[in-house]
Amino acid sequence: MKKIHQNPAGAAPPAGQYSQAVRLETGDTALVFVSGQIAVDAAGNRVGAGDIAAQATQVFENLSAILAANGATFADVVKMNTYLTDIGHRAAVAEARRRYITGEPPASTLVAVRELAHPDWLIEVEVVAAVAVG
Amino acid sequence: MKKIHQNPAGAAPPAGQYSQAVRLETGDTALVFVSGQIAVDAAGNRVGAGDIAAQATQVFENLSAILAANGATFADVVKMNTYLTDIGHRAAVAEARRRYITGEPPASTLVAVRELAHPDWLIEVEVVAAVAVG
Amino acid sequence: MKKIHQNPAGAAPPAGQYSQAVRLETGDTALVFVSGQIAVDAAGNRVGAGDIAAQATQVFENLSAILAANGATFADVVKMNTYLTDIGHRAAVAEARRRYITGEPPASTLVAVRELAHPDWLIEVEVVAAVAVG
Repeated sequence: MKKIHQNPAGAAPPAGQYSQAVRLETGDTALVFVSGQIAVDAAGNRVGAGDIAAQATQVFENLSAILAANGATFADVVKMNTYLTDIGHRAAVAEARRRYITGEPPASTLVAVRELAHPDWLIEVEVVAAVAVG
Repeated sequence: MKKIHQNPAGAAPPAGQYSQAVRLETGDTALVFVSGQIAVDAAGNRVGAGDIAAQATQVFENLSAILAANGATFADVVKMNTYLTDIGHRAAVAEARRRYITGEPPASTLVAVRELAHPDWLIEVEVVAAVAVG
Repeated sequence: MKKIHQNPAGAAPPAGQYSQAVRLETGDTALVFVSGQIAVDAAGNRVGAGDIAAQATQVFENLSAILAANGATFADVVKMNTYLTDIGHRAAVAEARRRYITGEPPASTLVAVRELAHPDWLIEVEVVAAVAVG
């Protein structure tokens, strides 16, 4: 069993005391637990204030980069949890989601919460992925 | 390692681009990641508008069907997350929960959120289950 | 594969029909799914009403006790999800977090929700940990 804390260069740097992902290798499988991604680009800048489509795209770009660092794609995501601040943004998020998830989709949960950590943020998405190892 | 995307006939069809469950078989174990279940019946109809007891029962019926498709019961659920829209519904949900979970209960988290994906929905419950394989 | 339901003496007793943790042993790894911890002490008393710093400390004490019962520490936490009722409490929570998490931090998600199960509660934190076995 092996645990690897990850902050891949292609994804946003952590906005606090957390790792962007923890990779847990056990047997023939790596489980990748990915932190909730928000609309921050790889340089650490907040992007897309007030623009749910832009924010959703940035979130999926961050997820893509973290998955890629694990030799994974969205096809390897087993669970996705999406937190919005306004359920009315659901259609725009679904549109972004369809661009990034093109195969069989993951198990998923979607809720609208009171607030995310920065007032600019309209969406946060976390995933668990599973990839074969060894 | 093997991943199987599932939309069992006895449970509600997905209300969007997601799978009702993803089954991850690794070593002697299948981890089953189940999407947040809402008050939609196996025919795809929303049920129990305004009635938390009816909605909670439908949600647990959907979970039961997805678990059964994996040779599992609530005894195999290791984690359950419950999202309500009104914390005042907690007692009604606990009553439904006691009818379906009769053995040692799972690890659990309960929160009330701002909104769920459809304005009729008062409860969403997601689980992770683990069953022996091979 | 083995599942063990846990309510360790050093942590708060469950506030409802749930187990404080479920330990899933598979292959060389135990995955520990820990329930959302709230500001209840090991004797079952609610503590820190209106005091986010006191509540965060109690939550991390409960998590510590459950981890210890599994031969684990915060270094073994792979994922942490934090639910606040007021995002303005984030700094106080980060301070508590820094006292308990001193090595490489877990993957994490932070949201503010509408309400937690008791009106006194300002914070709930759930984790998944992974420890080597056998």
